[in-house]
Amino acid sequence: MNSFGQRFRFTTFGESHGVALGVIVDGVPAGIKIDLDFIQSEMDRRKPGKSEIETARKESDTIQILSGVFNGISTGTSIAMVLFNENQKSRDYDNVKDLFRPGHADFTYFAKYGIRDYRGGGRSSARETVARVAAGAIAKLILKELDIEVKSGICAINGISIDEKDFDFNHPKDSEVYSLSKDFDSKFKDEILKAKNNHDSVGGIVALKATNVPAGLGEPIYYKLDAILADAMVSINAVKAVDIGDGIQSVTLNGSQNNDEITKDGFKTNHSGGILGGISNGDDINLKVYFKPTPSIFIAQDTIDTNNNELECKLSGRHDPCVATRGSVVAESMMALVLADMLLLNLSSKIENIKKVYC
Amino acid sequence: MNSFGQRFRFTTFGESHGVALGVIVDGVPAGIKIDLDFIQSEMDRRKPGKSEIETARKESDTIQILSGVFNGISTGTSIAMVLFNENQKSRDYDNVKDLFRPGHADFTYFAKYGIRDYRGGGRSSARETVARVAAGAIAKLILKELDIEVKSGICAINGISIDEKDFDFNHPKDSEVYSLSKDFDSKFKDEILKAKNNHDSVGGIVALKATNVPAGLGEPIYYKLDAILADAMVSINAVKAVDIGDGIQSVTLNGSQNNDEITKDGFKTNHSGGILGGISNGDDINLKVYFKPTPSIFIAQDTIDTNNNELECKLSGRHDPCVATRGSVVAESMMALVLADMLLLNLSSKIENIKKVYC
Amino acid sequence: MNSFGQRFRFTTFGESHGVALGVIVDGVPAGIKIDLDFIQSEMDRRKPGKSEIETARKESDTIQILSGVFNGISTGTSIAMVLFNENQKSRDYDNVKDLFRPGHADFTYFAKYGIRDYRGGGRSSARETVARVAAGAIAKLILKELDIEVKSGICAINGISIDEKDFDFNHPKDSEVYSLSKDFDSKFKDEILKAKNNHDSVGGIVALKATNVPAGLGEPIYYKLDAILADAMVSINAVKAVDIGDGIQSVTLNGSQNNDEITKDGFKTNHSGGILGGISNGDDINLKVYFKPTPSIFIAQDTIDTNNNELECKLSGRHDPCVATRGSVVAESMMALVLADMLLLNLSSKIENIKKVYC
Amino acid sequence: MNSFGQRFRFTTFGESHGVALGVIVDGVPAGIKIDLDFIQSEMDRRKPGKSEIETARKESDTIQILSGVFNGISTGTSIAMVLFNENQKSRDYDNVKDLFRPGHADFTYFAKYGIRDYRGGGRSSARETVARVAAGAIAKLILKELDIEVKSGICAINGISIDEKDFDFNHPKDSEVYSLSKDFDSKFKDEILKAKNNHDSVGGIVALKATNVPAGLGEPIYYKLDAILADAMVSINAVKAVDIGDGIQSVTLNGSQNNDEITKDGFKTNHSGGILGGISNGDDINLKVYFKPTPSIFIAQDTIDTNNNELECKLSGRHDPCVATRGSVVAESMMALVLADMLLLNLSSKIENIKKVYC
Repeated sequence: MNSFGQRFRFTTFGESHGVALGVIVDGVPAGIKIDLDFIQSEMDRRKPGKSEIETARKESDTIQILSGVFNGISTGTSIAMVLFNENQKSRDYDNVKDLFRPGHADFTYFAKYGIRDYRGGGRSSARETVARVAAGAIAKLILKELDIEVKSGICAINGISIDEKDFDFNHPKDSEVYSLSKDFDSKFKDEILKAKNNHDSVGGIVALKATNVPAGLGEPIYYKLDAILADAMVSINAVKAVDIGDGIQSVTLNGSQNNDEITKDGFKTNHSGGILGGISNGDDINLKVYFKPTPSIFIAQDTIDTNNNELECKLSGRHDPCVATRGSVVAESMMALVLADMLLLNLSSKIENIKKVYC
Repeated sequence: MNSFGQRFRFTTFGESHGVALGVIVDGVPAGIKIDLDFIQSEMDRRKPGKSEIETARKESDTIQILSGVFNGISTGTSIAMVLFNENQKSRDYDNVKDLFRPGHADFTYFAKYGIRDYRGGGRSSARETVARVAAGAIAKLILKELDIEVKSGICAINGISIDEKDFDFNHPKDSEVYSLSKDFDSKFKDEILKAKNNHDSVGGIVALKATNVPAGLGEPIYYKLDAILADAMVSINAVKAVDIGDGIQSVTLNGSQNNDEITKDGFKTNHSGGILGGISNGDDINLKVYFKPTPSIFIAQDTIDTNNNELECKLSGRHDPCVATRGSVVAESMMALVLADMLLLNLSSKIENIKKVYC
Repeated sequence: MNSFGQRFRFTTFGESHGVALGVIVDGVPAGIKIDLDFIQSEMDRRKPGKSEIETARKESDTIQILSGVFNGISTGTSIAMVLFNENQKSRDYDNVKDLFRPGHADFTYFAKYGIRDYRGGGRSSARETVARVAAGAIAKLILKELDIEVKSGICAINGISIDEKDFDFNHPKDSEVYSLSKDFDSKFKDEILKAKNNHDSVGGIVALKATNVPAGLGEPIYYKLDAILADAMVSINAVKAVDIGDGIQSVTLNGSQNNDEITKDGFKTNHSGGILGGISNGDDINLKVYFKPTPSIFIAQDTIDTNNNELECKLSGRHDPCVATRGSVVAESMMALVLADMLLLNLSSKIENIKKVYC
Repeated sequence: MNSFGQRFRFTTFGESHGVALGVIVDGVPAGIKIDLDFIQSEMDRRKPGKSEIETARKESDTIQILSGVFNGISTGTSIAMVLFNENQKSRDYDNVKDLFRPGHADFTYFAKYGIRDYRGGGRSSARETVARVAAGAIAKLILKELDIEVKSGICAINGISIDEKDFDFNHPKDSEVYSLSKDFDSKFKDEILKAKNNHDSVGGIVALKATNVPAGLGEPIYYKLDAILADAMVSINAVKAVDIGDGIQSVTLNGSQNNDEITKDGFKTNHSGGILGGISNGDDINLKVYFKPTPSIFIAQDTIDTNNNELECKLSGRHDPCVATRGSVVAESMMALVLADMLLLNLSSKIENIKKVYC
């Protein structure tokens, strides 16, 4: 269960403090230019240690391609990418070896497997998401062939929110806090640093937008575009809620307010988030993803150890006080991965398409 | 893509105004007493036409088992169930034959397939959920063997909300509006009837709880319990958001407030909704599901037809003014289906379990 | 595990003496004319009771479509088909209720599930293959859109073989024994009747040919065209071996004899059976399928019962003395199903194809 | 489509002359001792260059584990293994860059993808099977926990066959030609060297046996043990036929000769190969796998190039004159992989098993 996707499918491996992390991407069509610089630039967007709001763990996160590419072009075979860990400090975790950190997966992994790699959370660490970003970069190269674009950014930190009409999806790449508005850069940073200085953490909300998505993507009834986006998002560490279009707001609206009327030039509004009946309608696809506050805090907490003894958990080490910021890049990657998969799946929706390919 | 689940997997068929709807349930362990009365009682909970807040379409929704059961016991082979449509009024849809109803999947199905069964939305109709409830009843029979229970109810209609501490999961079965509190029965009903009388519709929120779920269910990294619950919920017609545990609230909390501390007797709080790292922690599993207002309203709306001509859409026919109410039964069924699947998947998590079966 | 296929996928249900058997076919592209007469004609080819070499069980095997078709055209949604059992004689099986018939799945189903529907073998009966033929007919309607054809027939019974150069794939439809050569009709029939008169049974070999298959079908490395054909064939009751192209013979040849040289007009020979590296090469696809003798014989055999008591098994009832004959239709259906799936899967092999659909 | 298996599932990557080959193994239960020496010893059995009957390409084939193992024990997370290529001589392939080698996948890969890595066949090379052997070694470690064993060897080369009653499954490990009988070591070697000296190649048959397999493995109807073994075997390079139990012979037998009668101590005979109705019956599982002669020969052959020009193909380089020998290790690995998967899948066959784990 370390795979995601149907036709465009990736499988990941690796632990926070293991030898390496990586991914096999399956279903990449042949003939795509695999731009390694672009893939690395995506890795760099997610990379820790770039500012004071991020964990001090410094990793070059240099990605290597091991297969599936010949003379810079995808061959249709599986593309493996790997990234070796460099800056692990496993000793940081000696004191948590036998105890379950509150808010983490320590307890549940132990309950499930009877054994766990306690170093940095092992497989449950958000470091696994390097593999998603690498795979997501390949997905973006496919989407680019059809001029589809996916973007993301932070729209709220600790309850301070940017108004939806002010979202600027070009800003996050220039923002230390991945903010969707220049006006909120310092506000968001202040919130994060305040939490950090209190040895605590904060949550945040990521907004995502995909543009130029053709109508028709998404497979009813059980591989709907919105359902799989929800799956993809909640599979990201610390994500606890997903909101498609005006989803959460819509429960306080009447149908007459929430329905998007249609004109010959398209939809008048986009309350639906670009998805109707689980299928894209050609409009922008919008969603929001809710990240809980980082469970790793430097305040004493009650817990138990593997022998069910009660004790105090006092963490040290290096952690992001807010995982939503770098998490936005991961969410964006997952959105790209879902869209690439849906693009491939939709090819067989009508016999007319099939004839275009074979006749 | 009409299937859901991995080891416990169901596949559905049928259209709103077709001959029949049904489901094949695969992966049911042998040796389970298949109680047809219980399955029918679940169908009846979802059945339309029971009160003035529901569509007037009256269906007996009588379920028949065609296979997989011998002398009342599951044999381990696929269980097919079918339900014939009785009270279709296809003529109601003659006037929408060529136009796209706003808020519906008419436009997107046509974009995807180039053809659509316009009668009652065809396959995109919420009538498909009869198959989920039938399959969900089988899932519940499995869960019952391990004393796991799933319950649901309405916690908000049109912005009027029951406080979480007042949720009574035993009340919905006695409530015309499936409410989680006796005190809100009439408030919720009033909201729904107000919308109905205005020829409009309203949205609502469903809360779900699973109790006695063993720790360890959920498959990292890409078949996490919460991710698949999110997928399952958003796959339901009209659902646009999902909130796990205190998910939406948690983005305004600090880690020190949101982490659930642990004692030798269990977790002190349950902000996580019973899921950490995608795996159940033994606590109650809580989530909330957001249903948009029914798109079928009796107010004129602008739209286009299949030839891209602009025109007015004025619906007639029979519709629920609020789909969240009966939708709660569907969400509950989906939760049961996910948990049954996760139970089976988890069997192989450790070699110790495998030896219990084979040695 | 009652499903087969990836993009074109079917799921079956039903027991020999249960209420009904059927299938849900998923992934059918929209826009295909669903010719019910053709589907029924395929059912009729497989139907028992047409001659003295077949079981006397007479079934009309009338197929009904329950969903997925609107105005005679596929809509892209799941197509369910059902067939009610009519001529069961469950009493025939009262005497085998507690014992394991040699050569049958009685013993293994009981070992696996701890319960079994003993009437006619329950789910393990070859009657399940009605569902494959119904699904296969849909597959053939897709293949027909691209002028791909699949044919089959008997090439050997009890060791008497037709020479490969004499195969006439148009003959089986006129042959009581589904023979690939008019000259062998009576020889094959004699073998079968000889076995029948001895209360015994015989085996046989089915040859299959698919013509006009485009080069490029089959997904390396683990969904190869030949591997999935092998899977499909061995999944048929009583099949115990599969031979692709000149497979079995090729182990006694040198590479220089077995390689198919290539000219600008195609391959000089077809030892490969039209498949190289798991991918179709544009030539005819040829394979052979080996059916063991029917395990149901009317001669006393030693066996045990469910309480491990030794006793004698003496069958009565109605059985085909040779299952290869009607089995040829099933094998042909499975080949069509595999090819339809591979056609859909191959759509995304290169970005060039994808652009043909979306740009 | 670079994955195989359902619950125990592996995904491979890598090309003959690329950077590295490897595999991610998913679904490994936690708590298994991962013996790296054993895994390497399996790699060594498959390794080329050990004798004059094998290709002169010398590779150390040193396997590295990148994830999923902690303190020598499986943690339940995905296990990645990688092997870097060392001794590639890509220049050997400069002269076949644009032409299609007869009997190889060159033509079909080009037809499918429009591009191919021509160096040593790229992804279609049998070098991919290193990944299967590595994954198979993990599978064997699981099987060992339940005392299940899988063995293999050569039973025929170029038509010279060992009689089944003389198979000695302990001999191949000591035999340069992986022979199942000491008496055939030199005969088989002579056949292979004769072909080699003629610049040609020969085919062969591999026999496989699994012992101590519990009754009940295999999932009807479409994941039958024998069907998936057939899939697994035909997915191996150069395999063109599969024979389960006495499959090929059984088509010349009567049912009374072929049925295995049952006593309270087990089956009297084992014509079925230990599988009835797709499910293991507790007896040894036997099958035979047919390898065509190596397509790489050093005799001139007619072919075309990528521009459809006719020309002569004259190969140089390093090749096995008979791929069946080392292929036996690959087939054995695939059998272990299938059995491990089936073991995990069968855990949920009855509610009684499920209660053993959870109650």
